[in-house]
Amino acid sequence: MSTVTSHTAIPSAADIKSAAIRIAPYISRTPVLKSPMFNNLAGGDFYLKCEHLQMTGAFKARGAMNTVLVHREEALKNGLLTHSSGNHGAALSWAAAQIGAKAYVIMPSNAPKAKIASVKYYGGIVTFCESTLEARETTAEQVRQDTGALLIHPYDNYDIIAGQATATYELLQEHPDLSQIFVPVGGGGLLAGAALANSYFGKAKVIGCEPSIADDAFKSFTSGKWIPAKSTNTIADGLKTSLGHKNFPIIHKHVERITLLTEDEIQEGWHTCLETIKQLIEPSAGTGVAAAMREETNGKTGIILCGGNMDVRRFTLL
Amino acid sequence: MSTVTSHTAIPSAADIKSAAIRIAPYISRTPVLKSPMFNNLAGGDFYLKCEHLQMTGAFKARGAMNTVLVHREEALKNGLLTHSSGNHGAALSWAAAQIGAKAYVIMPSNAPKAKIASVKYYGGIVTFCESTLEARETTAEQVRQDTGALLIHPYDNYDIIAGQATATYELLQEHPDLSQIFVPVGGGGLLAGAALANSYFGKAKVIGCEPSIADDAFKSFTSGKWIPAKSTNTIADGLKTSLGHKNFPIIHKHVERITLLTEDEIQEGWHTCLETIKQLIEPSAGTGVAAAMREETNGKTGIILCGGNMDVRRFTLL
Repeated sequence: MSTVTSHTAIPSAADIKSAAIRIAPYISRTPVLKSPMFNNLAGGDFYLKCEHLQMTGAFKARGAMNTVLVHREEALKNGLLTHSSGNHGAALSWAAAQIGAKAYVIMPSNAPKAKIASVKYYGGIVTFCESTLEARETTAEQVRQDTGALLIHPYDNYDIIAGQATATYELLQEHPDLSQIFVPVGGGGLLAGAALANSYFGKAKVIGCEPSIADDAFKSFTSGKWIPAKSTNTIADGLKTSLGHKNFPIIHKHVERITLLTEDEIQEGWHTCLETIKQLIEPSAGTGVAAAMREETNGKTGIILCGGNMDVRRFTLL
Repeated sequence: MSTVTSHTAIPSAADIKSAAIRIAPYISRTPVLKSPMFNNLAGGDFYLKCEHLQMTGAFKARGAMNTVLVHREEALKNGLLTHSSGNHGAALSWAAAQIGAKAYVIMPSNAPKAKIASVKYYGGIVTFCESTLEARETTAEQVRQDTGALLIHPYDNYDIIAGQATATYELLQEHPDLSQIFVPVGGGGLLAGAALANSYFGKAKVIGCEPSIADDAFKSFTSGKWIPAKSTNTIADGLKTSLGHKNFPIIHKHVERITLLTEDEIQEGWHTCLETIKQLIEPSAGTGVAAAMREETNGKTGIILCGGNMDVRRFTLL
């Protein structure tokens, strides 16, 4: 077993390369799709990195797997813990199970059934609580005291950021000459990772893609001052959260700009992805597609399709 | 230019190999997907042949391209003609355009906008008519007299069957040891092709998958006598048509059996495909998935995902 230490500073080029090697036996090297019809509709030369085809259906498997391996001994001893009910909860459960460790996931009792089922499917041990942030944190602290499990934040964590950076690292290995990369931004793990990877291995302009009605990253970026997210009902439900405090300075330094997408544009991006490349992405991933469709691009453009987890049973054929 | 003659008899092993070589420069060699989650849910070891990722979004590109190349000189001289408003119309338009030939497509004026747009996108020349079979045939005959174009039937045609057979031929090249292959059946081009390819190159039981409420192939197969389709509203809208007269004897001889799927089962297959492998298939392709989920299987099982063309704009996120 290699000895690795948890990152306490912004991941270096070597850290991202190490993360890529560390997680390679577990994650999928996702394909990069090209489509003449997509290019025709969106007007450009696009390279779509398919993280919806990643293990657990989202890029989150990368950061979770990296963190589990970095904390292998603690994970095997007392397990890991999170109170994210989204893709991170499933990803951490999956990643912990890869090395035979336990993952405790605190979820609000009114969480969507599909999300609860997903966490359980991957072996996560679910503890339910009231659906307030306070209840989640109190319950998490209780589970932590009972089990000694290590709390893993879904994005405000350098090991997570280094793991998420490997998606863009892979894309740049195949297409080092990208001029732009469109990346959805919620908590900023994927965007900070993309911006770092590009700063070391690429020469693209990295553009964050955020819903207009969840514009805290845009406001933070333009004001230079961390601004929390307000409550919102954007269809891009993975992008509602505030930027992480570790993520913000990386984004502020290495991201070109953040572009805002209306709900209609996000839906149009989602529809276009289904129609042209027949891939089920989640609405959050529609932001990157929508931005690519609206913006002028030069040369080759990457788009990170961040995930494909959504409730498809709401779509009935009968 | 190689000289090839149109098939006037059931395609041989050599005919299918020739078709595969002939169309290879134009079509996609589609991937064969595996998914642990899909296997877990469906209970077996499944290999999903992704014809929804084929050019024009359906296996129809194979038969159309083969037929265009077999009739290259006539196609270049006077063009080709069809009165299929489904995937074949788009596929024939696309295939004709690959060699710079014209394709005339007769469509009912009330055809879905997406289908009209698709045919036009691929360069087809659309002539509208009333939405009766008689009007279509009359209009097609008129266009044929005006242009001299060659009418290409969407499935009741040996060149088409040889082309469709290449999907299963490719699958068997990668997995010669399949024990079962589930194949949707409408007009029977795909199923007849699959059964022939398997008879030459495989050892699987080929099982046709048909909606319970569009069971003409089942009835024809079990009675040994061609029975036409009745009008139906199955969600598997690509499978409403009657078996072709050339297709039926091939199916009767080489197919193991035909299994019937309820509308609920087809929808469940469609949902499962979206959820597990994040692929947008059309409802017709859900029949093969549904059969695989319900039936006992031994060893390795292939499923032909026949296409991915459907109106996704009916699914709104807002």
